[in-house]
Amino acid sequence: MTKSLNIGLIGCGFMGRAHSNAYRKVNNFFELAHRPVLKAVCARNADQANAFATRWGYESVETDWKKLISRKDIDCVDICVPNNLHHDIAIAAAKAGKTVLCEKPLSMDTKEGQKMVAAVEKAKVPNMVWYNYRRVPAVTLAKQLVDDGKLGRIFHYRAVFLQDWTISADLPQGGTALWRLDAKSAGSGVTGDLLAHCIDTALWINGGIQSVTAMTETFIKERKHNLTGKVEKVGIDDACAFLARFNNGSLATFESTRYARGHKALYTFEVNGEKASLKWDLQDLHRLQYFDHGDESRLRAWKSIHVTDHGGEHPYMDKWWVPGLQIGYEHSFVHQVADFLQGLETRKPAGPTFRDALETQKVCDAVLASAKTKQWVKVK
Amino acid sequence: MTKSLNIGLIGCGFMGRAHSNAYRKVNNFFELAHRPVLKAVCARNADQANAFATRWGYESVETDWKKLISRKDIDCVDICVPNNLHHDIAIAAAKAGKTVLCEKPLSMDTKEGQKMVAAVEKAKVPNMVWYNYRRVPAVTLAKQLVDDGKLGRIFHYRAVFLQDWTISADLPQGGTALWRLDAKSAGSGVTGDLLAHCIDTALWINGGIQSVTAMTETFIKERKHNLTGKVEKVGIDDACAFLARFNNGSLATFESTRYARGHKALYTFEVNGEKASLKWDLQDLHRLQYFDHGDESRLRAWKSIHVTDHGGEHPYMDKWWVPGLQIGYEHSFVHQVADFLQGLETRKPAGPTFRDALETQKVCDAVLASAKTKQWVKVK
Amino acid sequence: MTKSLNIGLIGCGFMGRAHSNAYRKVNNFFELAHRPVLKAVCARNADQANAFATRWGYESVETDWKKLISRKDIDCVDICVPNNLHHDIAIAAAKAGKTVLCEKPLSMDTKEGQKMVAAVEKAKVPNMVWYNYRRVPAVTLAKQLVDDGKLGRIFHYRAVFLQDWTISADLPQGGTALWRLDAKSAGSGVTGDLLAHCIDTALWINGGIQSVTAMTETFIKERKHNLTGKVEKVGIDDACAFLARFNNGSLATFESTRYARGHKALYTFEVNGEKASLKWDLQDLHRLQYFDHGDESRLRAWKSIHVTDHGGEHPYMDKWWVPGLQIGYEHSFVHQVADFLQGLETRKPAGPTFRDALETQKVCDAVLASAKTKQWVKVK
Amino acid sequence: MTKSLNIGLIGCGFMGRAHSNAYRKVNNFFELAHRPVLKAVCARNADQANAFATRWGYESVETDWKKLISRKDIDCVDICVPNNLHHDIAIAAAKAGKTVLCEKPLSMDTKEGQKMVAAVEKAKVPNMVWYNYRRVPAVTLAKQLVDDGKLGRIFHYRAVFLQDWTISADLPQGGTALWRLDAKSAGSGVTGDLLAHCIDTALWINGGIQSVTAMTETFIKERKHNLTGKVEKVGIDDACAFLARFNNGSLATFESTRYARGHKALYTFEVNGEKASLKWDLQDLHRLQYFDHGDESRLRAWKSIHVTDHGGEHPYMDKWWVPGLQIGYEHSFVHQVADFLQGLETRKPAGPTFRDALETQKVCDAVLASAKTKQWVKVK
Repeated sequence: MTKSLNIGLIGCGFMGRAHSNAYRKVNNFFELAHRPVLKAVCARNADQANAFATRWGYESVETDWKKLISRKDIDCVDICVPNNLHHDIAIAAAKAGKTVLCEKPLSMDTKEGQKMVAAVEKAKVPNMVWYNYRRVPAVTLAKQLVDDGKLGRIFHYRAVFLQDWTISADLPQGGTALWRLDAKSAGSGVTGDLLAHCIDTALWINGGIQSVTAMTETFIKERKHNLTGKVEKVGIDDACAFLARFNNGSLATFESTRYARGHKALYTFEVNGEKASLKWDLQDLHRLQYFDHGDESRLRAWKSIHVTDHGGEHPYMDKWWVPGLQIGYEHSFVHQVADFLQGLETRKPAGPTFRDALETQKVCDAVLASAKTKQWVKVK
Repeated sequence: MTKSLNIGLIGCGFMGRAHSNAYRKVNNFFELAHRPVLKAVCARNADQANAFATRWGYESVETDWKKLISRKDIDCVDICVPNNLHHDIAIAAAKAGKTVLCEKPLSMDTKEGQKMVAAVEKAKVPNMVWYNYRRVPAVTLAKQLVDDGKLGRIFHYRAVFLQDWTISADLPQGGTALWRLDAKSAGSGVTGDLLAHCIDTALWINGGIQSVTAMTETFIKERKHNLTGKVEKVGIDDACAFLARFNNGSLATFESTRYARGHKALYTFEVNGEKASLKWDLQDLHRLQYFDHGDESRLRAWKSIHVTDHGGEHPYMDKWWVPGLQIGYEHSFVHQVADFLQGLETRKPAGPTFRDALETQKVCDAVLASAKTKQWVKVK
Repeated sequence: MTKSLNIGLIGCGFMGRAHSNAYRKVNNFFELAHRPVLKAVCARNADQANAFATRWGYESVETDWKKLISRKDIDCVDICVPNNLHHDIAIAAAKAGKTVLCEKPLSMDTKEGQKMVAAVEKAKVPNMVWYNYRRVPAVTLAKQLVDDGKLGRIFHYRAVFLQDWTISADLPQGGTALWRLDAKSAGSGVTGDLLAHCIDTALWINGGIQSVTAMTETFIKERKHNLTGKVEKVGIDDACAFLARFNNGSLATFESTRYARGHKALYTFEVNGEKASLKWDLQDLHRLQYFDHGDESRLRAWKSIHVTDHGGEHPYMDKWWVPGLQIGYEHSFVHQVADFLQGLETRKPAGPTFRDALETQKVCDAVLASAKTKQWVKVK
Repeated sequence: MTKSLNIGLIGCGFMGRAHSNAYRKVNNFFELAHRPVLKAVCARNADQANAFATRWGYESVETDWKKLISRKDIDCVDICVPNNLHHDIAIAAAKAGKTVLCEKPLSMDTKEGQKMVAAVEKAKVPNMVWYNYRRVPAVTLAKQLVDDGKLGRIFHYRAVFLQDWTISADLPQGGTALWRLDAKSAGSGVTGDLLAHCIDTALWINGGIQSVTAMTETFIKERKHNLTGKVEKVGIDDACAFLARFNNGSLATFESTRYARGHKALYTFEVNGEKASLKWDLQDLHRLQYFDHGDESRLRAWKSIHVTDHGGEHPYMDKWWVPGLQIGYEHSFVHQVADFLQGLETRKPAGPTFRDALETQKVCDAVLASAKTKQWVKVK
């Protein structure tokens, strides 16, 4: 008999859809003791909330997140709203004893994040942040290979997250779809939006970062603001690159931009170890590139592992179709829900928890500070 | 207000899962007048049927397909059982006035197929065969480019479907998971299972095939049979290759095997036209390779189109996530259901209908006849 | 002290250049007992011959190949003229006791080829045919892997050689650069020009071919002839595809065309064995793709071997630059000269000899016969 | 009638071979007014020099570079010795009125480089530095596309040069083959050896660099020294990464290491512009990746340009074979010699001249200074 986990979703944009899809699919594919129930969706705009509820099968609708949190029949609050709202909602939900799931990045900055961690830990409520790329099977496999010591001592880590959707100067900032261009809602630009993903994966795979030196740029200095109707200064970073030193002695380069023509979502990372190297690319997310120096010398080469095998111990893939048939972006969320539900059962929380995600926040803060001061900054 | 379409699914193996997933997802992502309702699932084994119903949310269970067909509350019968059962079920369902969806290949042979076409057409019931690869966005885009005349006169078509899962001589034939190795259940080996997909796409994109010369091979001559427990002669083709001439004057090569080490599901096709060429590969299904001779000469090249764009008119992709984020195998079924439901509304049936799929059957029959007679055989 | 091998080159077109370059480079990179000396070049057109001699450093010029052959100071006759001239020159050279090197294909047909083999064997002169692709390091490595038993039992072989340079109907046939379009000079079209390469490699790697069924097509039926100035029927095959069965029980598909838009010289082959598979592509000739089923299951994948390593036992590569730096097309000729010269010293002739190349001729003849008779034809 | 240019080569290691090969081949493939003559080779070790002269056809041998420079019959001194010797030889050669060609990097540091520039400019002798990658056809094409304005405003530049040959702690430093590990001979590690290439290309394509922030690392701190026989501190940088701002406002990341397992010579660069992007990779040097936002939206994609076409205006390629057939590493040197000789004739010197190469030196110095001071450093 499965136990219900009543979900109260706040926000019905892109991430609201991705999470809802995951909740609906997870029990079709995974054997789990828990079953998410789509209890309520909350959005300020009632029409939007109703349409979303109809489409996704939510049982009810709220237009005030405080009301949602106060409902007895909600077990789990899932926060899918702009970054500047995470803090208040998460803390209120924790105080109400709810399980709290929060979209990434955790918070506007480290300070906010620390309070959020304190709140969920004080309330002892299960919590998780949606750094979904950890659960792309090829990325999970990468983590396993590093943890198994296949790479040996790590010398280098490099990651980029390249997009090109804000090159046009005509694109406005602010409002529903474009809050990511508005510093008041987003906190930062590519740093919190894209590099946060790169940093989360890096910390997970390669351990802590010691110090960074960074640069940021805003190529389009002013854009019309959707809410005020006026041309306003752009406060976010359009691009950000930084050098880093990890605690394990490895060196890293990180870069993100929304001005890399030709790339829609090119998140790639590469790890070079003494014995092996690996790399991954979100635009072909079902593949992991792997080079093993231990191979017979005349056959040594980069392997393009098609991470779709069952018997082959490819993470999560025995739940889906048959070998050779690929899954996509949305499945990373299904996997995260599956792991989260399993964590409820086993009482070994699935990461990244709020505490885990706070580490990413600290690196982001150091990066932005370094870009401002033009100095190397320690992560603390 | 959406209209319900009550589904009665027969068979709960791999394809039963793929279709059920599509029925469950389609209205979350597509605006449609109809909504599939998972009314009943049918399997001989009641335990298996019940477990499947629980997992996927079917409202009821049957163990006799005749009973399912006789139910008033079933609008649409979906046939997901071995090939040798398609004929009887489809004809009975048509006679009962049900919409009939049938897994590919349509039938054991052309003769059976003709009776099935006659039945659905006499009964005037909507019908469709699950050649799902037509609805992979990159494949649909390929079709659009050819139809738009981008390639000009077609000279060449080539397709392969390569797998490696039956190389071990220890693999038995027959029974639940392995009926594809048993000629009595499957009719043929790779010809009906894999080449049928290649042929369906080819006929759709490049028009009719005139004649073929083929060879087949059975590498492992005897295998233990799961049902009899005895070692029996293997009746299927392990590999099949054929040359073909299309009605439009183009030449083609087709090949399929389950003995191509390293390939799990390498379905690729390529079309060479006077003005442009294109190719596609199931193992990276979100990409279409395209070469346009009309490009500036120093920049002429194969393009790897990441078929994930919205504004870019990539088929189906505006329903999913954001540009750059890939979908996978399962989505081809969602698209097929969406198109089918839309066809119900517009009364322009979504293909391939039974009549369309019969053409593929005719080519398969000609191929198998040619392999036997060692002669060129006309498709008729 | 190196021994001189005085070269008399007949023909100064594309292949004359490729061979001359190889002769000039070979001793710079390989330690050999022999050194080719560019003694004379022969072409009907004296101006052309003189210009070529100046450019490449040939010591003298002839305009009559019989005169060249009669010269005492010529040790080795290298035949780089259209196919219809191979037979007479080779036999005359053999009779004169010269070493004979002949461009591929050996001859216009098997009958001619047999006489040529008889001539060189009777005269006991060293002889070789320029199937240069055997000496691309990645191809040589492929051969080694098959010979080492890495692939186990072979199930499949497939090869294509695709070009697009004759699609325009305005292209004339005949004369200096275009003799390949003129059946009188070339014998056949893509069969002798391109498939001959594919067949040579296949026979070398996978053993003898038993029987074939083929189709050919001439897309442009008439072209202006450069010599007569008239529009004449095109006698060559623009495209040819065939199915084959090898003596070892494996199945094969072969295809070549000059109408595959987007491909300049896409010669690819793939071999699927029980234990491993490999593939190669002339347009990235420095790479060999390799899949080893013996690899740890979660890491099994196609490897893209960058065949540029030294210590890694990559054939020929220790003679060139440093690991990672690629060589190109021309180097296959240098390697063939190196092996040929070494064969002179060791008295183990480097292949393919005339006798080896005759086997390719037999397959070509069977292919063309099958295309005409529309029957399976045995190779004999 | 061609004019002779008598070459005196100093050093007969890897680069001595690459240059000699280029001198020998250039007139076979390019129509030029000048012809290099291999007059003399100089190395301290007479046996080595003699063997080299025999192998490559040098007419004479010297063991003292001063003697070589003093010879009347030498027109052009080509410096292929470790970096610490460039300065003295180049200045002496210039004073002697010789044309001076110098391996990269120009000098040990900017100061030395400035003196060398002064010397050749005072002497008004033709001069050039062997940044050969500019003449890989795909790189030259990249430059042309940027110069033609195809990319529009440039936002980003990124380059890496990754190798893995010094990972073993057993590798000694110093001496003939390993002087690159010895700071006294090499000046720096990957910065002068590898990043210098990346910087040269970047300055050529994207203009000047304003400022940098860098980090370096020496993973193996001590190695046996081949000359002293003792374990000595390693003075070079094993890895170096830096962020940069170009004068045109674009941002850049650069990284190089000899500790990136799996990469032998992975020099890649990418440029992102408003209208288009391009990238290149030394390990498949015959390809240029290009994305044009101006393409029809449904067909927009990265193109893999096989830079082997003739009519297609691919730089240098009309001199070689036929479309589709690739050239390799060594050809970049042939092109550089060809351009240099043409520059002699046209009196428009082929770059990079000493003055051009000095700019790269300045960036290297700024990078190394930044790594030491942990500050952003202006290039001056």
